[in-house]
Amino acid sequence: MVTYKDSGVDLAAADAAVREMGHHVKSTYGPNVLTGTHGGFAGMYRLDYPSGILRRNYRDPILVACTDGVGTKLEVAFRTNIADTIGIDLVAMCVNDLVVQGAEPLFFLDYIAVGELRPRQVADIVKGIAEGCREAGCAILGGETAEMPGFYPKGHYELAGFAVGVAERRRLITGRDVRAGDKVIGLLSSGIHSNGYSLVRKVFFDGEKEADLEEVLPGCTEPLGRELLRPTRIYVKPILSVLRRYRRKKPIKALAHITGSGLPGNVPRVLPKDVDVVIHKRNWEVPAIFRHIQRIGKVPEAEMFRVFNMGIGMVMIVSPHFEESIIEHFEELEVEAVKLGEVVAGKGRVKLVR
Amino acid sequence: MVTYKDSGVDLAAADAAVREMGHHVKSTYGPNVLTGTHGGFAGMYRLDYPSGILRRNYRDPILVACTDGVGTKLEVAFRTNIADTIGIDLVAMCVNDLVVQGAEPLFFLDYIAVGELRPRQVADIVKGIAEGCREAGCAILGGETAEMPGFYPKGHYELAGFAVGVAERRRLITGRDVRAGDKVIGLLSSGIHSNGYSLVRKVFFDGEKEADLEEVLPGCTEPLGRELLRPTRIYVKPILSVLRRYRRKKPIKALAHITGSGLPGNVPRVLPKDVDVVIHKRNWEVPAIFRHIQRIGKVPEAEMFRVFNMGIGMVMIVSPHFEESIIEHFEELEVEAVKLGEVVAGKGRVKLVR
Repeated sequence: MVTYKDSGVDLAAADAAVREMGHHVKSTYGPNVLTGTHGGFAGMYRLDYPSGILRRNYRDPILVACTDGVGTKLEVAFRTNIADTIGIDLVAMCVNDLVVQGAEPLFFLDYIAVGELRPRQVADIVKGIAEGCREAGCAILGGETAEMPGFYPKGHYELAGFAVGVAERRRLITGRDVRAGDKVIGLLSSGIHSNGYSLVRKVFFDGEKEADLEEVLPGCTEPLGRELLRPTRIYVKPILSVLRRYRRKKPIKALAHITGSGLPGNVPRVLPKDVDVVIHKRNWEVPAIFRHIQRIGKVPEAEMFRVFNMGIGMVMIVSPHFEESIIEHFEELEVEAVKLGEVVAGKGRVKLVR
Repeated sequence: MVTYKDSGVDLAAADAAVREMGHHVKSTYGPNVLTGTHGGFAGMYRLDYPSGILRRNYRDPILVACTDGVGTKLEVAFRTNIADTIGIDLVAMCVNDLVVQGAEPLFFLDYIAVGELRPRQVADIVKGIAEGCREAGCAILGGETAEMPGFYPKGHYELAGFAVGVAERRRLITGRDVRAGDKVIGLLSSGIHSNGYSLVRKVFFDGEKEADLEEVLPGCTEPLGRELLRPTRIYVKPILSVLRRYRRKKPIKALAHITGSGLPGNVPRVLPKDVDVVIHKRNWEVPAIFRHIQRIGKVPEAEMFRVFNMGIGMVMIVSPHFEESIIEHFEELEVEAVKLGEVVAGKGRVKLVR
């Protein structure tokens, strides 16, 4: 006789995890989340809550949506046995993609797949997701915890996130108006963020001797495990603040979230075909962790820039007259912003120069 | 020297897959999808397209969202090496959860994680997703294909889906008005759908001898592999049709999508605490595939009903006077609907009777 529990699915443990998650999830609710319909099959978000944002601010609302995961950064979470920050990365990867279109995140959903349901672990993951969502100002509207025995090793898990935001149609940021003479601002990253971890693993975990995750490498402030796991910065609030402050003059012409393929891959996604962006590498200091990866893995510098953010997590292209004041505004918000370079006539590429 | 390609990530293969997917994705677009902003970081959906649904039909629009995967049904897709139908399941699991709240699906996003990027495989997966989305009337607004070498075996993949729909607030279906005397209608499933596959695997793949996926079992119409992989039915269009037809009298009081935990687990999710639902098992024929699982795995009947849909994929609770005409309407739409039973005074439970 075979029952569902024999096959590796423990429904009682699933119930315990759901309870554990509850208070984290509720910490993200705002007045637009509809609650109280017990047992709903899907989450509900009221678009035009009478006193809410939408009726006042949006005439032609565009829903903006995206999905992402955290890639093999998960491997670092498994090795360090720390599960309560990777959810921040998951939210960051999604909401940073929304805000570069000029959208305000409304809600988020998570998909968590596990080999074995460990309520404490799932609750830790959701704790991080809730922290990210509060930071981004969006609600956790739903989620799925899929127990897939045999599909994932015990203790391992996979994460996928989905975010939906809203933007006023004529305020969508498209990069269409970028032209030669515009200035390029970079917002510093917190570290590796959530891309390039296949290479990180190759360098630190696949070699002849595995790296010691407890070691504090020169120039780093935390042990290697923590450096590698440092959560992705969420740029939503400072960018929305800048967009709001300059909403009349609209000097912000393009935004690029620097993910896989780095500055050379992501900045061109928002460039017209007749301009290049020149980025001066001397204008910021590449964080020590990237230098260690480069050195230990003997990775060519150009490859480093194609895989990692190298210290710049977000790029903003602005009208030249506003460069200084926008940087000052970011500094007031305690976000480190640097002058990266400028837009010149070209072919839609990024030129990294000394 | 280590480059990103050495670490198992092939960016050229990724580009090829993106091209392959393109025409499937575009086959799902309607006029509300904003296109033409090259390289966007997120998908965009215009809420109030002037000639579209929203301005006309929704006064207090509620966004309804959910996420789901297909669980270990993936294992069957791997074993049969058929990838072009599992995407239908992924969409079905999400949009069926939306329509039970009374919501019309607007858009869908997919997360595909692979051990090795095989463009043909990913294109097949997206082909199924596109087929499901056309069937459900929603657009593929975005997706992520994550290459995670080492995390998944080569040729294996994981899927997560995310759907957003819209409902008029006062037309949300909540089950609140269900009362004794109401009738229970069941819509037939196409087979196992996407739940219970941990048990399916235990029965067919973990035993002393593995089942032959080419064998046509008695009472089945297709070889076992195809039976196990048969796509989940998408109930969106017939249910929206019934809701529209009866929009004034509102006889449809509750809808339950029958997923993991079966009829006894899912129907109570939409029941008030003071009623039970009585379901007469003689009223429909349990498909042969479930009888084979029960027999081969020596699974108790009650356990079968707690794990599988047993032939009923969707349950609808209606005012008694409308039972016949709603069933007739489903038949006009070529959807098989059966009288399952009735609502009686009780405690929010399901009673399965002979």
